[in-house]
Amino acid sequence: MTGISIELSRSGIEQEKLDEIRNAAEAAAADLAEKKEAFNGWVRWPYSMPDKLLDKLEQEARRIRSLCEVLVVVGIGGSYLGTEAVFSALGGRREGYPELVFAGNSLSGEYHSRLLRSLEGRNFCICVVSKSGTTMESRLAFDVLKKALYDRYGQSAAERIVAVTDPVNGILRQEAEAMGYSSFEIPPDIGGRYSAFTPAILLPLAVSGADVRAFVRGAAEMAKSDFVQGAGLEYAMTRFLLMNSGKSIEAFEYFEPSLHGVGEWIKQLFAESEGKDGKGLFPVTMTFSTDLHSIGQFLQEGSRVFFETVIRIREAGEDVVIPDGKLKGRSLNEINALAVDGVINAHTKAGTPIIEISIPRVDESSLGALMYFFMMTTAVTGRLMKVDPFTQNGVEEYKAQIRALLGQE
Amino acid sequence: MTGISIELSRSGIEQEKLDEIRNAAEAAAADLAEKKEAFNGWVRWPYSMPDKLLDKLEQEARRIRSLCEVLVVVGIGGSYLGTEAVFSALGGRREGYPELVFAGNSLSGEYHSRLLRSLEGRNFCICVVSKSGTTMESRLAFDVLKKALYDRYGQSAAERIVAVTDPVNGILRQEAEAMGYSSFEIPPDIGGRYSAFTPAILLPLAVSGADVRAFVRGAAEMAKSDFVQGAGLEYAMTRFLLMNSGKSIEAFEYFEPSLHGVGEWIKQLFAESEGKDGKGLFPVTMTFSTDLHSIGQFLQEGSRVFFETVIRIREAGEDVVIPDGKLKGRSLNEINALAVDGVINAHTKAGTPIIEISIPRVDESSLGALMYFFMMTTAVTGRLMKVDPFTQNGVEEYKAQIRALLGQE
Repeated sequence: MTGISIELSRSGIEQEKLDEIRNAAEAAAADLAEKKEAFNGWVRWPYSMPDKLLDKLEQEARRIRSLCEVLVVVGIGGSYLGTEAVFSALGGRREGYPELVFAGNSLSGEYHSRLLRSLEGRNFCICVVSKSGTTMESRLAFDVLKKALYDRYGQSAAERIVAVTDPVNGILRQEAEAMGYSSFEIPPDIGGRYSAFTPAILLPLAVSGADVRAFVRGAAEMAKSDFVQGAGLEYAMTRFLLMNSGKSIEAFEYFEPSLHGVGEWIKQLFAESEGKDGKGLFPVTMTFSTDLHSIGQFLQEGSRVFFETVIRIREAGEDVVIPDGKLKGRSLNEINALAVDGVINAHTKAGTPIIEISIPRVDESSLGALMYFFMMTTAVTGRLMKVDPFTQNGVEEYKAQIRALLGQE
Repeated sequence: MTGISIELSRSGIEQEKLDEIRNAAEAAAADLAEKKEAFNGWVRWPYSMPDKLLDKLEQEARRIRSLCEVLVVVGIGGSYLGTEAVFSALGGRREGYPELVFAGNSLSGEYHSRLLRSLEGRNFCICVVSKSGTTMESRLAFDVLKKALYDRYGQSAAERIVAVTDPVNGILRQEAEAMGYSSFEIPPDIGGRYSAFTPAILLPLAVSGADVRAFVRGAAEMAKSDFVQGAGLEYAMTRFLLMNSGKSIEAFEYFEPSLHGVGEWIKQLFAESEGKDGKGLFPVTMTFSTDLHSIGQFLQEGSRVFFETVIRIREAGEDVVIPDGKLKGRSLNEINALAVDGVINAHTKAGTPIIEISIPRVDESSLGALMYFFMMTTAVTGRLMKVDPFTQNGVEEYKAQIRALLGQE
């Protein structure tokens, strides 16, 4: 089916311990699958989304592609991390397709000034993604970029804007209706970090040339698989027990620099789902072997506060033959694959609990399956921790502080 | 002087606690400054390096610039992180100067295959940085790139290679002498992660157009300042006491995406210096406000396993005016500066210990001063923890495992 597998035998968690909490984990999973709660929409979405939605997305993607060589994706958090994850994992800009660039995920004047300069002389469109329309970072960047768009294209600028937002509520929905922007809906019962298979992520990915049907299909296969209800629960329980045994950090590790964006997506998903009520595993990500010459020393000999979740890719992408020396004739990917085993052996020797997730290759279908797998995992672990995995009230506090500093409240 | 300041009043560590360990910290700093030990060379290096070295580096940088539009920097860990940190913080490629691209910091065939393709049709040179010359990642990438260079330029390829390595020992030194490459020396008494002010980092930075004299001057001013011996020790002691109070993680935070590389450099410096004998603070880095919509929830409400070190930039770079809405006429950098205060207020309210380091701006001089400050900090904290901050024996284990898998040992 999805080709994803998981190896939990080096986690140090005994079978009896898992058995003790299995009922709770199964109840949590059943609860997620059966109850239709406010933020549970993502569970069934990959296989229950409206039939015509993918057609409409692809049609709109073709229209946007015909207008521009750059699509500026304006959004922060769950409104862009999934897009960047898949776009960069698949190798970034594709020949014959627009480049995706990202805005509104920081307040840096320097970043946005450089971005505006890089758009000079290149045809661009804007995809603004915000459920409420009020998130400060994306709102300010949208205003800045919209001005540049109207300055360049006059009234025809409106046809270069596509808004992905709530179906009914919020100022972005109002603006889209009033100005005649093309628009798509984020289902109200799907929260930001669980929205990877909604138009929030699918539309810009489709513009970039990604096969969004395969991406959704991968997620749907995972959603309906025995694997997510079997190995997925085992992983969720193992993480929970490792946390209870005193581990503070889960280090997600991969051996391809192109998975950096997937790591950023993972961090939001896990940190926002679990980090509440004084609980949670702090997620960190590492690109190996780069970080073996950085954090590697700590992993081998430092404070025992972490466990590791290694993501192995069984079939790597393009390759390079080694032209010289002892390894002449072998390839970099061959040595990189050995490095995965080398790291697992070395860190097991150091007494670190290690979980290994293996995916067949980096393509749309595998990424969709993997991302859905992680969504289900963190939701179940959150339930085991007795936190609500679908809220993020803590994100509001710094915004309130900024409003106070601005004298707005 | 350096214009760097530090605010420790929100760390939650009381003055009496600091006083109790002040003698130990002062002894550690004096020891670093006075004793000439195997890996202590970096302490005096910024103000004691040979007079003519910067002239020679700049001369060689001009020669390389005249030959290429891309300089491939081959190195891993301390052999490239400082270069990438400063290059990206200063805004990346400069008009009229070569681009820097990085190789040999992973074993990914895909990464290196794409890199080779990106070099097609562009004149390039190679700067290979490796103290021993035997580090597998950089060795393999160097062989691959050297082949591409010789295929393109024939025997004149040798003049396009510059090696930065040990003055006498190692296979890279031998190869440089035998093949007539231009070469520079990494002082034998300066370890990889403490080599930011040696030719390992200065040469590629000079090629990219960075003002390496100002970078070294910033470090020298910090090295000779009362600040590093005063506030620097306070910071080192505070970190040590926070670790002893049960904190596992130091989260370094900045509000400019361009500081991402500085964060990567920080992670290596701290993790490799402190992560041994089962000790150490796990360093993580965050770009705000991006990560406020990711890890932010955890920082506000999650498990209390971390403290935060915020790096504030007092004078931001280029800016963008907000054209519309409630904040019309204000600028992004103005709001970004408020976000620094907003975050400090919000996280202080959550009970998180916060340290604030403030730098005047992002330029060569400030970066040099800041990087030296961190080098001294982690060395002193390491001594307080009773670990040797200048070893990294743990990095060897995964290499040994790979060799075993290759049947080489």
